[in-house]
Amino acid sequence: MSSEMNGAESLVRTLIAGGVDVCFTNPGTSEMHFVAALDKVPGMRCVLGLFEGVVTGAADGYYRMLGKPASTLLHLAPGLANGLANLHNAKKADSGIVNIVGEHATYHIKYDAPLTADIEGTAAPMSHWVKTSPTSQTIAADGALAIAAARQTPGQIATLILPADTAWGPADAVAETAPAAAPARVSDAAVKAAAALLRSGQPATLLMGGAALRQPCLELAGRIAAKTGCGILTEGANTRLERGAGRVQVNRIPYVVEQALAVMKKAGNLVLVGAREPVAFFAYPDKPSLLMDPGASSTKLAGVEDDMAAALAALAGELDCLDMAPAGVATPHRPVLPNGEITPAAIAATLGAMLPEGAIVVDESVTTGREFFPATAGAPPHDWINNRGGSIGYGMPVAIGAAIACPDRKVVALVGDGSAMYTVQSLWTMARENLDITVLIFANGTYNILRGELTNVGVQNPGPRAVDMLSIDRPNLNWVAMAKGMGVEASRANNAEELAKAMDAGLHSEGPYLIEVAL
Amino acid sequence: MSSEMNGAESLVRTLIAGGVDVCFTNPGTSEMHFVAALDKVPGMRCVLGLFEGVVTGAADGYYRMLGKPASTLLHLAPGLANGLANLHNAKKADSGIVNIVGEHATYHIKYDAPLTADIEGTAAPMSHWVKTSPTSQTIAADGALAIAAARQTPGQIATLILPADTAWGPADAVAETAPAAAPARVSDAAVKAAAALLRSGQPATLLMGGAALRQPCLELAGRIAAKTGCGILTEGANTRLERGAGRVQVNRIPYVVEQALAVMKKAGNLVLVGAREPVAFFAYPDKPSLLMDPGASSTKLAGVEDDMAAALAALAGELDCLDMAPAGVATPHRPVLPNGEITPAAIAATLGAMLPEGAIVVDESVTTGREFFPATAGAPPHDWINNRGGSIGYGMPVAIGAAIACPDRKVVALVGDGSAMYTVQSLWTMARENLDITVLIFANGTYNILRGELTNVGVQNPGPRAVDMLSIDRPNLNWVAMAKGMGVEASRANNAEELAKAMDAGLHSEGPYLIEVAL
Repeated sequence: MSSEMNGAESLVRTLIAGGVDVCFTNPGTSEMHFVAALDKVPGMRCVLGLFEGVVTGAADGYYRMLGKPASTLLHLAPGLANGLANLHNAKKADSGIVNIVGEHATYHIKYDAPLTADIEGTAAPMSHWVKTSPTSQTIAADGALAIAAARQTPGQIATLILPADTAWGPADAVAETAPAAAPARVSDAAVKAAAALLRSGQPATLLMGGAALRQPCLELAGRIAAKTGCGILTEGANTRLERGAGRVQVNRIPYVVEQALAVMKKAGNLVLVGAREPVAFFAYPDKPSLLMDPGASSTKLAGVEDDMAAALAALAGELDCLDMAPAGVATPHRPVLPNGEITPAAIAATLGAMLPEGAIVVDESVTTGREFFPATAGAPPHDWINNRGGSIGYGMPVAIGAAIACPDRKVVALVGDGSAMYTVQSLWTMARENLDITVLIFANGTYNILRGELTNVGVQNPGPRAVDMLSIDRPNLNWVAMAKGMGVEASRANNAEELAKAMDAGLHSEGPYLIEVAL
Repeated sequence: MSSEMNGAESLVRTLIAGGVDVCFTNPGTSEMHFVAALDKVPGMRCVLGLFEGVVTGAADGYYRMLGKPASTLLHLAPGLANGLANLHNAKKADSGIVNIVGEHATYHIKYDAPLTADIEGTAAPMSHWVKTSPTSQTIAADGALAIAAARQTPGQIATLILPADTAWGPADAVAETAPAAAPARVSDAAVKAAAALLRSGQPATLLMGGAALRQPCLELAGRIAAKTGCGILTEGANTRLERGAGRVQVNRIPYVVEQALAVMKKAGNLVLVGAREPVAFFAYPDKPSLLMDPGASSTKLAGVEDDMAAALAALAGELDCLDMAPAGVATPHRPVLPNGEITPAAIAATLGAMLPEGAIVVDESVTTGREFFPATAGAPPHDWINNRGGSIGYGMPVAIGAAIACPDRKVVALVGDGSAMYTVQSLWTMARENLDITVLIFANGTYNILRGELTNVGVQNPGPRAVDMLSIDRPNLNWVAMAKGMGVEASRANNAEELAKAMDAGLHSEGPYLIEVAL
């Protein structure tokens, strides 16, 4: 490489200047100039994944912890395609990400070489912003636009396509990224409408989501609850919920429609703060899509695009409760460590008993985890992350991003065995970067959720061929062997005592540790 | 399920009636009625994959062997997205596939539930045909259209989107699929132009591709070569090449641009038979995209849409060589088994010495495999399959499809370690179905091709950060452990003697066997 700057180097320098200093990568030939520029320019941490779903999921987890975008480096349309499912999840979580996708040299595209495909079309469904930068002189400015798009409130998926000749041609500029606009302020009318609803005397609930699930928003919500007697709920899946002892306790709307309807019936009218009127994850014959109680109404105080802390402060001011003690603060409590058989309740108690302060829990436990919340409510303060997009295989990649973002905190990933297989390559990146992640794999040998769903959609007595499509225990997956194959220490827990012992080993390790939890 | 037929059942019956009797599946909730219908309707073989790239790649391999489409069952836009990279490869291989992609119930889409996304937009870049079937009364007819689209010559990717209420609503019809149209006949003018070029006295070569790489097309090409002295070549990557002792021998255009240019210079003028003028896989600074010799010309005898056997017969007739003995027939020859260090040449010799008659070789050996062709040219008759789309992670899934298609033949998958990781979940499906596949993993601990590519794009002395992005040996991948973790017997070969011994074990096994080949 000559000492003259090329397009790739101008892009790397623009990214770093714009605060994007982590790149999750899975490069190929068309990205080699970008890779070479990483050697020339200090300041970009590069983390390699062996599959693109690991890469994009990690960028999601990084944003959820730090609220700022990382970049990804992906290889043409198929490389991007492999990352799309976790970009879908990130998009639904309002995470900001700057994807750099290599493309053939502009003059090479017309020859329809093997890897040629429509990258912009591939990116569009899972991106808010897509652009192919036509020349090495435009790529820095386009990079700054991508960063600005990703940094909006809420975050956005920005996909910048980098043709090879755009990367290798000469460049002379590094671009400055425009500062992010402040989130919008909500109107007085929205505050007064929310206050009126809460003062009406009817049952009412604050339904919170997005960045409203952090202190001090939760504390303001607790004050409002103390004053008005309203409830506080979150959607079924959250980007990141700050919870645990000393924090205002918030429950999630259950996944199962009947349970959700019962919760929403009690909830009454809704004040929406970064959340939408709740809907069922799937449609089922003869069940409603909208989970709101038919007799209830809702009013939007603030959306994820708004300054939700200011909105809640204004509402608390309007209700004259800014100085009240918050209601619903969780008291410190740890369950007793269980004995005997491993059940969902036993896992919940073990987590409640052992979760360390500051833990980041990435929850992809699916059916196994439905009892985890109450048992962990009084554990020391921690964060709880859910899958917002519903595409399984998000858990281990998001855990990687969280661990890169917060190297001084313990990450605990709770993953069903079926889910974990989609992005099993994550284990290798955990080992390579020696990330402080304890992974619990719930090994029930089935797509267990689908067994319930067969019944939910009206199939009462599934036959052997149907059941076979939901069973992943022929052959059994040996997670300890797979983890060791990718350099991650691992053990299998066959009973609650072994689970506690393995948890202890994982939590005292400084690198990754996998526990196959036999269910 | 009631005894009345629903949309899902009408679709399953339509698929089976249309000859689509294998379904590679990774279902979710929205596909549960389809799964349930599989129990009610006999005749569909279902093969479960734990990741969608396995599913779509398997359908590609199935088509390449049988020339008829299989179906896939995928879960909404993210499930489809996970399968796109291997759909890209299948599309570039002209493989016909019928994708069934579940969607939310039509009335549920407006609520923007977590998994809601633009399925049609996600499918479009890697599909020839996309349709959402609006009702349970239309799904059978739409299924027949999808089959017809997939069965065209050449094959097409047909993506049929199945909303949940389309699946569960009442249906009363099974649709009949229109018979496939015969491939087009080439014009006399095309035959005469090819004959004129071959008679001109200038160096000339038949560049063959697609279904022209099967007997009797190769035999006709051999007669034409005997008569005219022309060469016979194929593109760098083939859908399936029938080769080995007693068959007309055909070499591939090399991947490396300089080598390809040298081959094409010798090749002279080209007669194209199911192939296009050759282009470089990637563009590089100061290297051409088009690999044709600048002084050479080409004429198209037949494309993949044409009846290539008829075209070659017409050309041989025009040249009056239908009764000649074909030139270039490979004589039986097996190399001596090598000793000592494992090198690409030693692997090539081992394959040449041991490949059984009728073997199906799925080649994703990338850099390791560049010397495999000469050493295996005289082995007993076998098929050789390449990656037409260039997105790595195609090899093990295609091997699954080939093994399902041809249960009486041995499948040998040759896969680089970097490539194998993208769809490592394939091993589990191989074990579950007890598929007769011997997998050789070339464990060089690097994206070795990218090291060369760094130099090719002009980076002479890559620094440590760049090299780190191309190295996958920190930690080392233990393929024996990973294979055992997914139920596949495995061993590691550290020298040529151990490789031959492991090959012997694999070739004498009736189920899957993995060999980690230490390079």
